[in-house]
Amino acid sequence: MPFDDDLLTRLHDICGTRVSTGAAVREHHSHGESWHPPGLPDAVVFPESTDEVSRVVAACGAARAPIVPFGMGSSLEGHVNAIHGGVSIDLTRMARVVRLSVEDLDVTVEAGMTRLALDRELRNTGLMFPIDPGADATIGGMAATRASGTTAVRYGTMRENVLGLTVVLADGRVIRTGGRARKSSSGYDLTRLFVGSEGTLGVITDVTLRLHGRPEFVSAAVCPFASIEGAANTVIQTIQLGIPVARIEIIDEVQLRVVNAYSKTDYRIAPTLFFEFHGISAVTVDEQVRAVEEIAREHGAEDFRWAEDADARAVLWKARHNAYYATVASRPGARAWTTDVCVPIAHLAACIVETQADSHATGLDAPLVGHAGDGNFHLIVMLDPADARELATVSAFSERLVERALRFGGTSSGEHGVGLGKLDYLAAEHGEGLEVMRAIKRTLDPQNLMNPGKLIAL
Amino acid sequence: MPFDDDLLTRLHDICGTRVSTGAAVREHHSHGESWHPPGLPDAVVFPESTDEVSRVVAACGAARAPIVPFGMGSSLEGHVNAIHGGVSIDLTRMARVVRLSVEDLDVTVEAGMTRLALDRELRNTGLMFPIDPGADATIGGMAATRASGTTAVRYGTMRENVLGLTVVLADGRVIRTGGRARKSSSGYDLTRLFVGSEGTLGVITDVTLRLHGRPEFVSAAVCPFASIEGAANTVIQTIQLGIPVARIEIIDEVQLRVVNAYSKTDYRIAPTLFFEFHGISAVTVDEQVRAVEEIAREHGAEDFRWAEDADARAVLWKARHNAYYATVASRPGARAWTTDVCVPIAHLAACIVETQADSHATGLDAPLVGHAGDGNFHLIVMLDPADARELATVSAFSERLVERALRFGGTSSGEHGVGLGKLDYLAAEHGEGLEVMRAIKRTLDPQNLMNPGKLIAL
Repeated sequence: MPFDDDLLTRLHDICGTRVSTGAAVREHHSHGESWHPPGLPDAVVFPESTDEVSRVVAACGAARAPIVPFGMGSSLEGHVNAIHGGVSIDLTRMARVVRLSVEDLDVTVEAGMTRLALDRELRNTGLMFPIDPGADATIGGMAATRASGTTAVRYGTMRENVLGLTVVLADGRVIRTGGRARKSSSGYDLTRLFVGSEGTLGVITDVTLRLHGRPEFVSAAVCPFASIEGAANTVIQTIQLGIPVARIEIIDEVQLRVVNAYSKTDYRIAPTLFFEFHGISAVTVDEQVRAVEEIAREHGAEDFRWAEDADARAVLWKARHNAYYATVASRPGARAWTTDVCVPIAHLAACIVETQADSHATGLDAPLVGHAGDGNFHLIVMLDPADARELATVSAFSERLVERALRFGGTSSGEHGVGLGKLDYLAAEHGEGLEVMRAIKRTLDPQNLMNPGKLIAL
Repeated sequence: MPFDDDLLTRLHDICGTRVSTGAAVREHHSHGESWHPPGLPDAVVFPESTDEVSRVVAACGAARAPIVPFGMGSSLEGHVNAIHGGVSIDLTRMARVVRLSVEDLDVTVEAGMTRLALDRELRNTGLMFPIDPGADATIGGMAATRASGTTAVRYGTMRENVLGLTVVLADGRVIRTGGRARKSSSGYDLTRLFVGSEGTLGVITDVTLRLHGRPEFVSAAVCPFASIEGAANTVIQTIQLGIPVARIEIIDEVQLRVVNAYSKTDYRIAPTLFFEFHGISAVTVDEQVRAVEEIAREHGAEDFRWAEDADARAVLWKARHNAYYATVASRPGARAWTTDVCVPIAHLAACIVETQADSHATGLDAPLVGHAGDGNFHLIVMLDPADARELATVSAFSERLVERALRFGGTSSGEHGVGLGKLDYLAAEHGEGLEVMRAIKRTLDPQNLMNPGKLIAL
């Protein structure tokens, strides 16, 4: 469909000079961080209010132009790629704190604020927003993809931490879902319906978040194991005993080599767990540490390297967070295909071992890193998407991994979302439930203009 | 609409002798525990499988007969009253454990199993299902109303603890939502859409629940205060400091008088907090206890009465749980109108104080009890629904309370649901969002046969 000049005029009426059809801006808004083929939007708008977003969406609806919300572009499943053209709505100019209540431990922020910017806003409040997907994603994007990350084992995911949303619907109407009460039984849970809907049901313009007290006492440790099973079984037993670890991350040898090279660290090359412990006192933290250390020793832990002070912890988690970028840097010019399955915790060891065997048999050099406490792990496979053979090999490996995860009672996506990458697995994972999802999509987006082709194929 | 004999024949074909049109059975299925006018179903069926429920629902759909799911009948908002007649589906014969995974801390149960029956099933596993609304409700009913109760402050509500559902849709199709992975970003969150949908979108036939380790160390205490503000402010500060109390319940003088009379207890007549503390060691429990005791003293706590051993705790929580039944027993022949607002925690004291003043000014003798850690409190008002004047007085009081809660940024229902009782407040609470709820209802239940007239007025 050729882009409608009248629509462009309307967009200028609404956003003034904050509309671009320039090649560089469109290219920047054509892809996230993944290997998926980019899709150029016809135009990019930079609204500064929910009202502007509402008018942009209404204008696009009238012109039958697709709408693709865009935050930091850190998506790993092609969510932001404008595969049918249309208008990319860049929300990064909506990055204010709308209101903060320290007493109630909640905050409302505009969708374009990033999690690190929010963390800076909260620095002197004694509170924190703990959800940490690694990338400095926008809060709106994290809500739209039901993101989680390293701290979900203790603090939950966006599903548990979003109290309410402001959403612009396909016809431009604005709704406010949820509220500030900690719990409610009043009506259908629209908040949870839009959390994870990936822009396919509406555009999230602000988010009310539950906050948590900053732990007064924190400790962290790195612990290598003789085997990946030993590491995974340490995780399983820690969770089963209900020890409230704040982070429990698993990293394999392949990943550690890449991390050491990139971050100039000297972690021993072995299957390794990265831990963080939070508590209201030194006593509670020490207790968690001792309990986990005992479990780890029983499962072949070779030593604990402690990072008590904030600086040492920062080095540790920077290395962990850079695992993805380290891997990307390990093969210049290539793109990353990041897998994302999540399985019931008791099957974590078996699923990882089978997957590593498959990876070796396939001849992939795929680093493994995971939020082990949730049963969620990633392999980062570098590839040249233009190489049809390589693409087919990785695609087949990924498909086997998803089938394996589903066989273990797991899910095709623990935290990255469906986007373009997991579309083909929804039928296998959800069966007849997929028809209910389609019915809801058709009801709320009858013209199929809200991020079309993502999450759900109509 | 006269009840269709052909439908009755079909129901017998499906459920054999497990179909009743007897007056006593229909009366039992015409109401919950609340004051709301009963509604007689034309027939009651007792299915024993999801397949039977599916066939019953399909048969009712063909005959355009309303469908009302029924569990233990402990609803407080008229959810189970068959106000348009039709077929009451009693799920209590579906009360089996479908599967249990101790390693994964999850279980799948049929919808008709009650929470205490599940607790018995789990007794020797080291695990528990902590959600405790007081009544021995069915797990299906608890999911359908998004129930919570005394332990939600620590363990969350049904929203956080339901991993997946089996649901029979209005056309008889069966879907399975969610799964066993701790988290997922795969598709729309249908689980959370059906949790709290009160039978208006489908009939829940089994529920997969997240379980928790039974705490090895537990302590409880009763603490009277000089003022209700002192008690409420103790709660607020405890939550703000992130002390992981397992229960923190508030009870006023009026309620304690009733409790003492009914449970033969001798609690001092004062605004009082009931606490429970859970921990993985005596040290962590003691630490929580000391922290809370210090906060309480600062806010005028008059003494702590400890209940260390299980028997003493059982007495304490039995007294707390019997508050509702004690109040009902305090006025034989009358019915209970139980309010259920929930406000952001910092507004709890103000909302309670204003509400007590209103209650006194209105001349009501309404005991107050609440899950203070969530900002959720109840007043139990006894009335004779046949007395128009009394009904109007209580109705107006309840309306003022809801308006007050909404003014404080709260919700009309913390945990009891909408049913018949909160229908009129959804527009004020959800605004345009209510239209989205209506659109979803029409999409999934085009004939409006699924518990019609509850939660949402079309």
